[in-house]
Amino acid sequence: MKAWSDEAYTLFEIQQRDRGIDVDAAVRRLSALAVETPSWGYGDSGTRFKVFQKEGVPRNPYEKIDDAAVVHQLTGACPSVAIHIPWDKVDDYQYLRDYALQRGLRIGAVNPNLFQDDDYMLGSATNADAVIRNKAIRHMLECVDVMREVGSSALSLWFADGTNYPGQGHIRRRKRWLQEALTEVYAALDPGMRMLIEYKFFEPGFYHTDLADWGMALQAANQLGGQAQVLVDIGHHAPGTNVEHIVAYLLDEGKLGGFHFNSRKYADDDLIVGAMNPYELFLIFYQILDAERDTDGLVARTAYEIAYMIDQSHVIEPKIPAMIRSVCNIQTQFAKALLIQHEELQDLQAKNDVLGAEHAVRTAFEFDVTPLVCRMREERGLPMDPMRAYYESGYAEKICERGVGGSGW
Amino acid sequence: MKAWSDEAYTLFEIQQRDRGIDVDAAVRRLSALAVETPSWGYGDSGTRFKVFQKEGVPRNPYEKIDDAAVVHQLTGACPSVAIHIPWDKVDDYQYLRDYALQRGLRIGAVNPNLFQDDDYMLGSATNADAVIRNKAIRHMLECVDVMREVGSSALSLWFADGTNYPGQGHIRRRKRWLQEALTEVYAALDPGMRMLIEYKFFEPGFYHTDLADWGMALQAANQLGGQAQVLVDIGHHAPGTNVEHIVAYLLDEGKLGGFHFNSRKYADDDLIVGAMNPYELFLIFYQILDAERDTDGLVARTAYEIAYMIDQSHVIEPKIPAMIRSVCNIQTQFAKALLIQHEELQDLQAKNDVLGAEHAVRTAFEFDVTPLVCRMREERGLPMDPMRAYYESGYAEKICERGVGGSGW
Amino acid sequence: MKAWSDEAYTLFEIQQRDRGIDVDAAVRRLSALAVETPSWGYGDSGTRFKVFQKEGVPRNPYEKIDDAAVVHQLTGACPSVAIHIPWDKVDDYQYLRDYALQRGLRIGAVNPNLFQDDDYMLGSATNADAVIRNKAIRHMLECVDVMREVGSSALSLWFADGTNYPGQGHIRRRKRWLQEALTEVYAALDPGMRMLIEYKFFEPGFYHTDLADWGMALQAANQLGGQAQVLVDIGHHAPGTNVEHIVAYLLDEGKLGGFHFNSRKYADDDLIVGAMNPYELFLIFYQILDAERDTDGLVARTAYEIAYMIDQSHVIEPKIPAMIRSVCNIQTQFAKALLIQHEELQDLQAKNDVLGAEHAVRTAFEFDVTPLVCRMREERGLPMDPMRAYYESGYAEKICERGVGGSGW
Amino acid sequence: MKAWSDEAYTLFEIQQRDRGIDVDAAVRRLSALAVETPSWGYGDSGTRFKVFQKEGVPRNPYEKIDDAAVVHQLTGACPSVAIHIPWDKVDDYQYLRDYALQRGLRIGAVNPNLFQDDDYMLGSATNADAVIRNKAIRHMLECVDVMREVGSSALSLWFADGTNYPGQGHIRRRKRWLQEALTEVYAALDPGMRMLIEYKFFEPGFYHTDLADWGMALQAANQLGGQAQVLVDIGHHAPGTNVEHIVAYLLDEGKLGGFHFNSRKYADDDLIVGAMNPYELFLIFYQILDAERDTDGLVARTAYEIAYMIDQSHVIEPKIPAMIRSVCNIQTQFAKALLIQHEELQDLQAKNDVLGAEHAVRTAFEFDVTPLVCRMREERGLPMDPMRAYYESGYAEKICERGVGGSGW
Repeated sequence: MKAWSDEAYTLFEIQQRDRGIDVDAAVRRLSALAVETPSWGYGDSGTRFKVFQKEGVPRNPYEKIDDAAVVHQLTGACPSVAIHIPWDKVDDYQYLRDYALQRGLRIGAVNPNLFQDDDYMLGSATNADAVIRNKAIRHMLECVDVMREVGSSALSLWFADGTNYPGQGHIRRRKRWLQEALTEVYAALDPGMRMLIEYKFFEPGFYHTDLADWGMALQAANQLGGQAQVLVDIGHHAPGTNVEHIVAYLLDEGKLGGFHFNSRKYADDDLIVGAMNPYELFLIFYQILDAERDTDGLVARTAYEIAYMIDQSHVIEPKIPAMIRSVCNIQTQFAKALLIQHEELQDLQAKNDVLGAEHAVRTAFEFDVTPLVCRMREERGLPMDPMRAYYESGYAEKICERGVGGSGW
Repeated sequence: MKAWSDEAYTLFEIQQRDRGIDVDAAVRRLSALAVETPSWGYGDSGTRFKVFQKEGVPRNPYEKIDDAAVVHQLTGACPSVAIHIPWDKVDDYQYLRDYALQRGLRIGAVNPNLFQDDDYMLGSATNADAVIRNKAIRHMLECVDVMREVGSSALSLWFADGTNYPGQGHIRRRKRWLQEALTEVYAALDPGMRMLIEYKFFEPGFYHTDLADWGMALQAANQLGGQAQVLVDIGHHAPGTNVEHIVAYLLDEGKLGGFHFNSRKYADDDLIVGAMNPYELFLIFYQILDAERDTDGLVARTAYEIAYMIDQSHVIEPKIPAMIRSVCNIQTQFAKALLIQHEELQDLQAKNDVLGAEHAVRTAFEFDVTPLVCRMREERGLPMDPMRAYYESGYAEKICERGVGGSGW
Repeated sequence: MKAWSDEAYTLFEIQQRDRGIDVDAAVRRLSALAVETPSWGYGDSGTRFKVFQKEGVPRNPYEKIDDAAVVHQLTGACPSVAIHIPWDKVDDYQYLRDYALQRGLRIGAVNPNLFQDDDYMLGSATNADAVIRNKAIRHMLECVDVMREVGSSALSLWFADGTNYPGQGHIRRRKRWLQEALTEVYAALDPGMRMLIEYKFFEPGFYHTDLADWGMALQAANQLGGQAQVLVDIGHHAPGTNVEHIVAYLLDEGKLGGFHFNSRKYADDDLIVGAMNPYELFLIFYQILDAERDTDGLVARTAYEIAYMIDQSHVIEPKIPAMIRSVCNIQTQFAKALLIQHEELQDLQAKNDVLGAEHAVRTAFEFDVTPLVCRMREERGLPMDPMRAYYESGYAEKICERGVGGSGW
Repeated sequence: MKAWSDEAYTLFEIQQRDRGIDVDAAVRRLSALAVETPSWGYGDSGTRFKVFQKEGVPRNPYEKIDDAAVVHQLTGACPSVAIHIPWDKVDDYQYLRDYALQRGLRIGAVNPNLFQDDDYMLGSATNADAVIRNKAIRHMLECVDVMREVGSSALSLWFADGTNYPGQGHIRRRKRWLQEALTEVYAALDPGMRMLIEYKFFEPGFYHTDLADWGMALQAANQLGGQAQVLVDIGHHAPGTNVEHIVAYLLDEGKLGGFHFNSRKYADDDLIVGAMNPYELFLIFYQILDAERDTDGLVARTAYEIAYMIDQSHVIEPKIPAMIRSVCNIQTQFAKALLIQHEELQDLQAKNDVLGAEHAVRTAFEFDVTPLVCRMREERGLPMDPMRAYYESGYAEKICERGVGGSGW
């Protein structure tokens, strides 16, 4: 930190104290924020037009964990890594778990792959062919077994199932097949395990998607039970959708299980989280932090137990720097949301003061939170600038020996 | 009917019989289709830029019923009329009911107005001010009383409630206030009454809308009980939304209560139903007719009990002709959907024959159903061309004596 | 300013100087930013569902100028006011001009109203009726006369012209009628006058809009000549449209004439500028400031001569505070854009450093520019907090004597 | 044709004659409609999640031509095939041309590939690196040479160029590089050659696309000259865009060069043309046929010289049947548009009869045009049902010997 940074922090602290913000508490809450990175985010991904292959991309699950560990070392915020089966299939999951632990990581959500096997071309759990539906269920059950072995508590389900043309599939029958599959898998969960159900507006289905929106995911989760929750991927919505509203709604129902973070301008663009519309990310965190303060135990607990996960497609970006940038973007917007003065805001809302209440939220967004983030890093002995630290670490050069290859997205 | 029409019908019948379609049954089902018109659809409506006032627009609820009766006489398909309180407020609702009955109509859904009173500027049932929230509840309860007096069985609820700016309102608190209001009103319903809960993507709220999508409406209805269902206004969705999927989903849950028919290209454009994308309307009817055939009693019953209602904003169109055109468009697409060969389609779906199944649905759409619609009209002694019959009736000239005025949308 | 503000400014200056930013130049550029407010923005406006009427809304053009003068006194940034004819029609325009001058204002753009006369229901300059087309042209020519009298140099044209249904109008014929009308009006312009041509994606036309996008407006302007340019209303685009790209494109062609500032989430929501997606506003200013630095004289001149105008619809907001907030939001994002380090950025772009270049832009956005904006205000003797100054001025109470009424949007 | 088909045709002819439609002329116009199929449409394509490989997919350009020849034999409507370089690169283009001729085909548009070479990851003609920009220009010039050898008259240009993040590229500089590249390639065209410039809303660029809409493509074409025109890919627009309006606009400017046909519901879904919204396809043809009748020679000639091309991505469909279905869908909607009664329509438009004019267009759409299409096929000795003829031909089985493989989209 340059000299002016200490002054900047002092100034920041005075300024926030004047507003009634407990800066120490903010630093603590920021410090506790954990963001899971995905093993497939370290591999090459692309668009349907081309996958550009990069040097240094990991060749196996262990190298992905190596990369994830580097991101955690530099940011202190990414203690777990999500895996995708069969991309991360190994003979000895116990070994994978230990490999991660030795690098300061644990295995997070387990993600079954239900879209790359040729059998799944016209649907996995909703395929008209019962044999394929059953295959999909078996694969999910296999992933529950993997969860036990790697010590994971979250089964993260994304179904690419849908149709491309009217009439291609029987919508309601597919809906029931999906629920049957979920029911069977749900029954196999151990008590501490969660099933996170993801939805998506479209793609790869271009006419209808079996789980097309949060309403369908919530209804499915409601019918399953308390261990089933909804996973919100920020990019999986129709144009204009108010995502923070959905977040607030699901929190209020105790059904928000987790996030797949990324950002978008057009469709499911899977860009770096916070890059396209940082204010939206801030507003999502505003809803979450508001819920954390709620006197309703279920709501507050739900908010605290959210699984924050990154899920992006780095088409043109170097993988590890893109992941570091993502984590920093999340921290920045989270830190800003921590500066919202909730008492003042609630007063203004109660008085129906439209401009006043809007301003109360917006004020928090306009602060430069560099001092807050830096103090958190300083206290934890982390590099002030994780990106620069990465470039100076030599790791980028070192992994070039891996050559060109890699997988996943 | 010109001479070639009889031949056309004969040919049509042979053609359909060859496909295994029971034309008589199709005529019967088409004949039984009832579409409710809205009293406010006979009055002037406009955009925020201008309400163009037309000659001959009704000056009171009775004249609206007169106009609705004309539409029913000409189409035979519109036996009920929806009312909006206080726009259709009268001293003696018994008299209004009888007035309608004498003209062959009954009163359909009762719609409380929760958006034009100055108090509701920042919300009705979700207003931060408890006095206003209570006022909204009282108004809905008043409408339940009106239902009893006019013999209506449907309370149709649209809340214009929402916010224009982040922070303006507390989203989750508003959610709970809304559910409290609905709960109180629901408790006042008589056994045979239904509460239809409408949702809307946006407008007049431009940041968040308290009931923003079908998922929120369904969750509210689920928490209320069996007399609460969801109302789908076709124009109230985000761009690209697959509306027929939502229709199928709600049918499968036994929760599709009714429709507000209209059409759109951009936002909630409220154009004549079937005018922008007739195929979408056909696909909606495909889902409904498929549900009517379901062996699951709840699904089939739900489909048969759907309240079909028109809700449009005729900004530049003459009102009565626009309504007649709307009814005809609905009949045309419904008739086409009646020509889907479900057995063949299910076979193709079971075989995962993508192009075949799509073609089976599309084939029905490509038929010219004029013969079918005309036979239905002939059997019931209705005019073959309701629009021409209207223009020839002299009614349009007669109502000019009303001058310029009118209300509602 | 509290004590820490001086320190904040000092710190800010050091910080920026380290980055190679000339803070004095930034203050000067910010100080020179002039934003025109619209006379109709001080009156009541609404949605199609309801216009809520407020106390204290101006009753005539003079009171609108009074209000605009207050906004300029408090912000120092709004030296001109746009007028709308016939809403602001007066007998003596010379007097109106002087009235404004005495209050420190000049009359800015003159806006013909081509959508509220009953004749224009189905089009003004594109109406199938030649009499109505001619009437529209006469009205625009009348406005050119008004320009001369009030000393305005900009004719701001928005055509609400479009159709609601396929077939309703002949699209290409209407296109030619529009160009004929523009040609006739263009010929009447004095040398120093500009014609600003606005486009709109949809509304009030819900099928097609004669000037639907920037491409149509540019083509029209190209065919007219150098005094015709395009006016970009930020809310008049399809979902997802990259507005800053259009801005850059038009600048490069020397054809960006002005802006109508507001913000949106869904359609043409006309909310307070910068409220929904502040980053987008910043990115627009980035393109403009980049063009101001261009060595191509046409591009730089075009950028410097942009007419910045606010055009919003304050449905639920108090008018004058909403206008002050708008100006402040513009200043904030403009100030942030002034902190972009263009040399560094161009280096990174030249090296195809994706993450580096993105970061260079984003860095400027993350600064808190309060010190910069405050210094500008201080230097010019303006209130540090224009909103608070307004509330303390007593003006809000004073205008209550106007009662309820008002007009325009 | 079954017996009732002759009767159906007779009835159809009487019905249309009564409306003043010249059925013989309609048959002739339909018969003259030529639709180019793309060589890459016979190969496997997919989404970013998976390319499902099919049996029987062509292994080289010659097999693609074999497949295209089959489609032409069965439909009589596809006399040319577009090629993509380097996907269809061969040593001897003269041989390729002759190979096609012997199968009744000619080579249509030549499409350079500017997105799959690793060098193009961050842009081809707009890359910050001059060496890569030059490489892109060389490749386009190479394609002009190929045009001469294969006897093609159309260079079809799609640039995947764009950026994923704000700041990543200098938007205006990229704009100028693109125009420079186009200018150099344009200069190399022989007199009879056309350059067709395609635009795209987004993908693979997710922040900005250098040629993002028709306005940018038109402006580029205008600056090049008369041999440059715009290519409209139906799926390359923002949600809600009125595509037929753009078509009409470009026709009126003499700048509509061709189409890439496909259909979409969400983004650039590349589904079978006419499958999602058949009415839109009909309305596009309405604009074209209206232009063909125009007395303005440029407009009519432009309409007659449109290059109709299919460009789809058959992810789950068998390739040849999908192509046959596409051609049939085009013929169906084109035939319907041929039934519009233009004189009646223009009368109604002139009278500002909104409902009447809309109905005049819609009436044509509601006819079943099977008799018209069948008569055209009968007259030309083509199979009545091309799809059935294909399945009965044994070709599908025969090509299975090719095994699994293929390329392109």
